[in-house]
Amino acid sequence: MSNSTTGKVIKCRAAVAWEAGKPLVVEEVEVAPPQANEVRLKILFTALCHTDVYFWEAKGQTPLFPRIFGHEAGGVVESVGEGVTDLQPGDHVLPVFTGECKECRHCKSEESNMCDLLRIDTERGVMINDGKTRFSKNGQPIYHFLGTSTFSEYTVVHVGCVAKINPAAPLDIVCVLSCGFCTGFGATVNVAKPPKGSTVAIFGLGAVGLAAAEGARVSGAARIIGVDLNPDRFETAKKFGVTEFVNPKEYNKPVQEVIAEMTDGGVDRSVECTGSVQAMISAFECVHDGWGVAVLVGVPNKDDAFKTHPVNFLAERTLKGTFYGNYKPLSDLPNVVDRYMNKGLELEKFITHSVSFSDINKSFDYMLQGKSIRCVIRMED
Amino acid sequence: MSNSTTGKVIKCRAAVAWEAGKPLVVEEVEVAPPQANEVRLKILFTALCHTDVYFWEAKGQTPLFPRIFGHEAGGVVESVGEGVTDLQPGDHVLPVFTGECKECRHCKSEESNMCDLLRIDTERGVMINDGKTRFSKNGQPIYHFLGTSTFSEYTVVHVGCVAKINPAAPLDIVCVLSCGFCTGFGATVNVAKPPKGSTVAIFGLGAVGLAAAEGARVSGAARIIGVDLNPDRFETAKKFGVTEFVNPKEYNKPVQEVIAEMTDGGVDRSVECTGSVQAMISAFECVHDGWGVAVLVGVPNKDDAFKTHPVNFLAERTLKGTFYGNYKPLSDLPNVVDRYMNKGLELEKFITHSVSFSDINKSFDYMLQGKSIRCVIRMED
Repeated sequence: MSNSTTGKVIKCRAAVAWEAGKPLVVEEVEVAPPQANEVRLKILFTALCHTDVYFWEAKGQTPLFPRIFGHEAGGVVESVGEGVTDLQPGDHVLPVFTGECKECRHCKSEESNMCDLLRIDTERGVMINDGKTRFSKNGQPIYHFLGTSTFSEYTVVHVGCVAKINPAAPLDIVCVLSCGFCTGFGATVNVAKPPKGSTVAIFGLGAVGLAAAEGARVSGAARIIGVDLNPDRFETAKKFGVTEFVNPKEYNKPVQEVIAEMTDGGVDRSVECTGSVQAMISAFECVHDGWGVAVLVGVPNKDDAFKTHPVNFLAERTLKGTFYGNYKPLSDLPNVVDRYMNKGLELEKFITHSVSFSDINKSFDYMLQGKSIRCVIRMED
Repeated sequence: MSNSTTGKVIKCRAAVAWEAGKPLVVEEVEVAPPQANEVRLKILFTALCHTDVYFWEAKGQTPLFPRIFGHEAGGVVESVGEGVTDLQPGDHVLPVFTGECKECRHCKSEESNMCDLLRIDTERGVMINDGKTRFSKNGQPIYHFLGTSTFSEYTVVHVGCVAKINPAAPLDIVCVLSCGFCTGFGATVNVAKPPKGSTVAIFGLGAVGLAAAEGARVSGAARIIGVDLNPDRFETAKKFGVTEFVNPKEYNKPVQEVIAEMTDGGVDRSVECTGSVQAMISAFECVHDGWGVAVLVGVPNKDDAFKTHPVNFLAERTLKGTFYGNYKPLSDLPNVVDRYMNKGLELEKFITHSVSFSDINKSFDYMLQGKSIRCVIRMED
């Protein structure tokens, strides 16, 4: 199967970030054909994630502009490059910001999803095949973001970063599995693994934390304690199974002590989704001795130090970190999609807003104002 | 079944520590009968552990003297107190410094061995039933140690701290299972769980570290890297399966970097058996990203802080602590004894010295001079 566009440059609309923090400009760009081990995708739905906003604001990193952001999306394969045998035009797919080469020690390990070749690289704005971009406008290269750049009607992605999924799945909904949902949900179900009837604390009730709560809910947790500095988030969090709420600002003692008192010595599991190192320490110290497991998800600042008394470990507590919920993107995403199709996941409640592609900047506003969990952008609309 | 001594005070020899750091005095003491939920044991073999020496030296703790030390031992039940139904006179047993009440949340959890009632208490010198000692001399109470006080021909122990074992097991050998061996071996086999063919680093090559190495050996580890500041320990360690040796003093960079270079990015598992907080940090940071698990065993100083960059966790490393190798003393020790009886453990190589009870102070000399791994004291000799 082949399209009339196969092997040709495609002209299409993309939302280009020309400068840090300035509104994206939806305009025509050129998208080169996929090279060896690359796939060109037609993006149908994409969603905005905090990581897009963080790198668009470009505070504290090397700014790389012009750039096309976007990494949560669903689409269809338009054409494939040389050597690609696992995908063909027409396949329904989710592009992912991290990949699976299936050859390295990480891919061969059952425990890791941190592929040596295709692990997330926020600094790289080019394809690894030739070190160049596939996007351009009037001959000027436009940089990629996370190897996905889904804020474009067409994009080129390494084949190891493209998960083929059930074609019956609604792409306007399962597109959120590309990043935030799986990060939080997997942290709970794949790493923290709360037993049925257990008590789980979730630090941070943004999209990732709510997905972690959803993981606790489907695991049968009896109590889900949400921790957030913003009390407005509790009403929303209730819909995601959070049963109790703790605002650290309301106490004049460490939140780990508050939680220990609420739970006769500590929670069974905790999941940290804020990236604040103080929250990480609290999330670890609030788990029960003997069996407590704390899982770190949120990304800290460069110079942060995690600090605790080692006796907290010796009392049989466990601290683990996770990346993308320990999901191997190609191997595991099809199963997560099927779990949704079998009504095992409530993804719809994460999607609070939807805009047409031409209104993409509104999705930034919703997020910056704290209004949205996920805003889906309709590319064909 | 009942002995002529049942219900009566027994006069017998014990090695009494009258003062911190002074040689023990083997002399006659009185041992009261066991009260409710207590058992009186005839000790046949006991071994000296660093923890005895630490509390005998009484540096940095509240000294509690006169006291009878000793907590690694094997013996036979002499008589049982009211309400004891699980043990009877003649049973072969190992007393243990930590217990299993079988009623608390920890005992009911499959994951914990940190019994609320009978968890190790180094400060307590009396029995929990009445807050008094069972040992005395001329009416003067002599304090207990760790609830075991096995440096006495007879001792009284809470029934929840007495593991009934296969009577065919040689008590002069399996007595070492009461503490050090299980602590190290269990840390590896129950907590670190190295896969077959994996690489394991062991920090500290004393008795506990060598037992951890034995755990790696029986798990089928391909490489066992021993880390110690004392190069004399390497020859001994080879007999315990250690294949490579790293002396941090020989490098002018952190030992975690040395190990990462030796192992293409880090070991699969590490076990920390020194209690040095710097070694704990190295043991954590030397495990491979994606799947590495570090296990802390050694007991730190009160004011130590474990400190690392949180990204080391987020790269999918796990840090866990363990207490007594996660063994539940009553439930699990009989199986460890049977594993030895079935030739699955090489306990003999841990026993480097043996002395008669009257020479008990020699066992302190051997340990303080770094000559012994375990010195077994023959109580009837």
